[in-house]
Amino acid sequence: MSAKLESVDAKGDVAVLMKDMGRRARASARALALAAPDKKTAALKAAAQAIRDNASAILQANAEDIAAAAADKLTDAFRDRLSLDAKRVAAMAESVDIVAALPDPVGVVTSSWDRPNGLKIERVRTPLGVIAVIYESRPNVTADAGALCVKSGNAVILRGGSESFHSSRAIHRALVNGLESQGLPADAIQLVPTRDRAAVGELLSGLGGSIDVVVPRGGKALVGRVEAEARVPVFAHLEGVCHVYVHSAADLEMAKKIVLNAKMRRTGVCGSAETLLVDRATASTHLKPLVEMLIAAGCEIRGDEATRAADKRVIAATEQDWSTEYLDAILSVKVVDGIQAAIDHIERHGTHHTDSIVTGDREAAEKFLSEVDSAIVLHNASTQFADGGEFGFGAEIGIATGRLHARGPVGVEQLTSFKYRVLGNGQTRP
Amino acid sequence: MSAKLESVDAKGDVAVLMKDMGRRARASARALALAAPDKKTAALKAAAQAIRDNASAILQANAEDIAAAAADKLTDAFRDRLSLDAKRVAAMAESVDIVAALPDPVGVVTSSWDRPNGLKIERVRTPLGVIAVIYESRPNVTADAGALCVKSGNAVILRGGSESFHSSRAIHRALVNGLESQGLPADAIQLVPTRDRAAVGELLSGLGGSIDVVVPRGGKALVGRVEAEARVPVFAHLEGVCHVYVHSAADLEMAKKIVLNAKMRRTGVCGSAETLLVDRATASTHLKPLVEMLIAAGCEIRGDEATRAADKRVIAATEQDWSTEYLDAILSVKVVDGIQAAIDHIERHGTHHTDSIVTGDREAAEKFLSEVDSAIVLHNASTQFADGGEFGFGAEIGIATGRLHARGPVGVEQLTSFKYRVLGNGQTRP
Repeated sequence: MSAKLESVDAKGDVAVLMKDMGRRARASARALALAAPDKKTAALKAAAQAIRDNASAILQANAEDIAAAAADKLTDAFRDRLSLDAKRVAAMAESVDIVAALPDPVGVVTSSWDRPNGLKIERVRTPLGVIAVIYESRPNVTADAGALCVKSGNAVILRGGSESFHSSRAIHRALVNGLESQGLPADAIQLVPTRDRAAVGELLSGLGGSIDVVVPRGGKALVGRVEAEARVPVFAHLEGVCHVYVHSAADLEMAKKIVLNAKMRRTGVCGSAETLLVDRATASTHLKPLVEMLIAAGCEIRGDEATRAADKRVIAATEQDWSTEYLDAILSVKVVDGIQAAIDHIERHGTHHTDSIVTGDREAAEKFLSEVDSAIVLHNASTQFADGGEFGFGAEIGIATGRLHARGPVGVEQLTSFKYRVLGNGQTRP
Repeated sequence: MSAKLESVDAKGDVAVLMKDMGRRARASARALALAAPDKKTAALKAAAQAIRDNASAILQANAEDIAAAAADKLTDAFRDRLSLDAKRVAAMAESVDIVAALPDPVGVVTSSWDRPNGLKIERVRTPLGVIAVIYESRPNVTADAGALCVKSGNAVILRGGSESFHSSRAIHRALVNGLESQGLPADAIQLVPTRDRAAVGELLSGLGGSIDVVVPRGGKALVGRVEAEARVPVFAHLEGVCHVYVHSAADLEMAKKIVLNAKMRRTGVCGSAETLLVDRATASTHLKPLVEMLIAAGCEIRGDEATRAADKRVIAATEQDWSTEYLDAILSVKVVDGIQAAIDHIERHGTHHTDSIVTGDREAAEKFLSEVDSAIVLHNASTQFADGGEFGFGAEIGIATGRLHARGPVGVEQLTSFKYRVLGNGQTRP
């Protein structure tokens, strides 16, 4: 990765550059926090239109990125993440339009109550302030993250992967066009104008109080670095070691449908299942058909002894398999002795992300939903529903696995804080 | 402060001791998270009763603390914070009873909605996990913090000020009695059994993933150390540089009542006013009576030129006065040119804690409440209402001034996280 600064803005000193970005973000955050809902909506609609209007420039920048990428890095998966085409650019604009159309979260009264002394207390949503989003070479994150932050009244500093540098710049330009069309400060969406990795370190330092929260969006290495180094709050995004537990009272056809979807719909998303737990009480009828179905669908199975006994093609699972996020057509399969053993397995090996139980027994479902300590727990539904869009949030900036502030899909509401408004008529405290 | 270990538990190695406490807290957290509401309530009621039953032992321990405190540290204020008497012990037990009687926050569905595909999504409150509370030599915090954490289903590690070491131990014993009477794990409320300050450093390191959040409760030095060193999330508790703004449309009598209460009711609490802003449009009628009233009440006034012109006894304010939390009978007073100047002053010098406007003009009130970015904003009421009890939260563990997760009074609800329960009947994602 090149350490040289690539932008006209860069002064040759990353720390100075970044501090200045932080100052400008903080200064613009107040204007954005107080911006009228209509203005934010109009700015985002204009940004979506600017993405469409500048589609050819964006595609040209993307071609530059792909040409510049080191040939050895261009695996199929990497090229797929990095590449844009006309359809993807259109989808990106559409996604900004969807965020534009969401209800404005700022100022919403989420609860209110009266006190015996006549004080009326309201809890209302407010922006968080300045958000730093650090992501990899997926150009569309530039548009999604920028739009979500603006909608929720926050200023944002975006730091995309260096391989998508030119693409992100072109998309960023469209977002800024949108802001400027409504007289909102351009500094409310800034893109780090250098590929120098020291910029990430500066962001994680908090830029002297200019960053309120850091959102890492990407793989394990990125998230690990952010969590280890950050001196400011982070919305933790651990990997998703997600489970489907087929309970003794599970309908086989439903179990097959859910397991197949949870694993194979898309194997590279964080909500894809990585481990199948089958109750011993139902293994004799359910295990073999589930394994055969998965293998027929092209999935490699790594199983415990009972699973290997059900099908000779099953590879022996090692202890490490139970804690592995494959993000691939591989599934670990284990037979467990009842629901408590399933819950204990998930507690020991899971990542508190997304876990599902398949059962016709409501009491078992209730126990699973109560006792599994994950951001998302499902009954009779695929783990692949772990997605802000599927939750009705319009879009998400990621799936949080921490327990503080944001948990599960992080949409516009999770990008807000709150304050208390207390309305009196002269009350003093005794 | 002594660096030697004082407990029978201590093994001579603070790091080892603390790691072990962390492991035990984490192990007990799950049991507490799943404990039935009735059990938690009964345990806290039993703890309150144990405090009453052991009042003489607690008072004896407190006498030991006071006798041991270095004579030069025993200022009146310090002795007042540290000292217990029969009435204070009774109030402490009463406070635990109040927390016991609060509605259980765990499992409460805070919102639910249906998706077009038939999925029903519920957002429910869950405990946070393990909380570390670091506080100074106020023995009652041991009881309050312990009770609040248990009620919200969390395990807690308490680290009180070393001068209250024996008092805290005696109170802690009563809390553990309560837990044990209901078969809840004693490890759910642990008290650091050593005065060694290295224990604080260990807590701030997160004890290898055993601490989910740190709550500092105390003065500037303590909070500063916690925020600087913590490698885990902190509920930030900045000092309270709180303002009362007397707007041009303020009724003088109401303004006098509110200003007097906001400053003088108790000067040592974080919600006490430190700066009075008077609108220039009303200074000719309101400034002099306000200043005269405050001086008559024993308050020192540090004012700008206009304020000094109103009363000769006013001391000249320096730039630093506008950012100072006196926690004493001192008030800085400034005349400002209209509501925007008042808001700008608060933005520049305040600590986003608690600020109040006195006005008969609803539009001005609305502007102030919307634009002042503080945890608590009030209209025609005293800043001294910044208190969990006054908000109806039953009790509080502190007032948070950060914007993430908790803001304002931190009661049992703010000590919870949430998760999503998704109820389906076989849904898979297209």
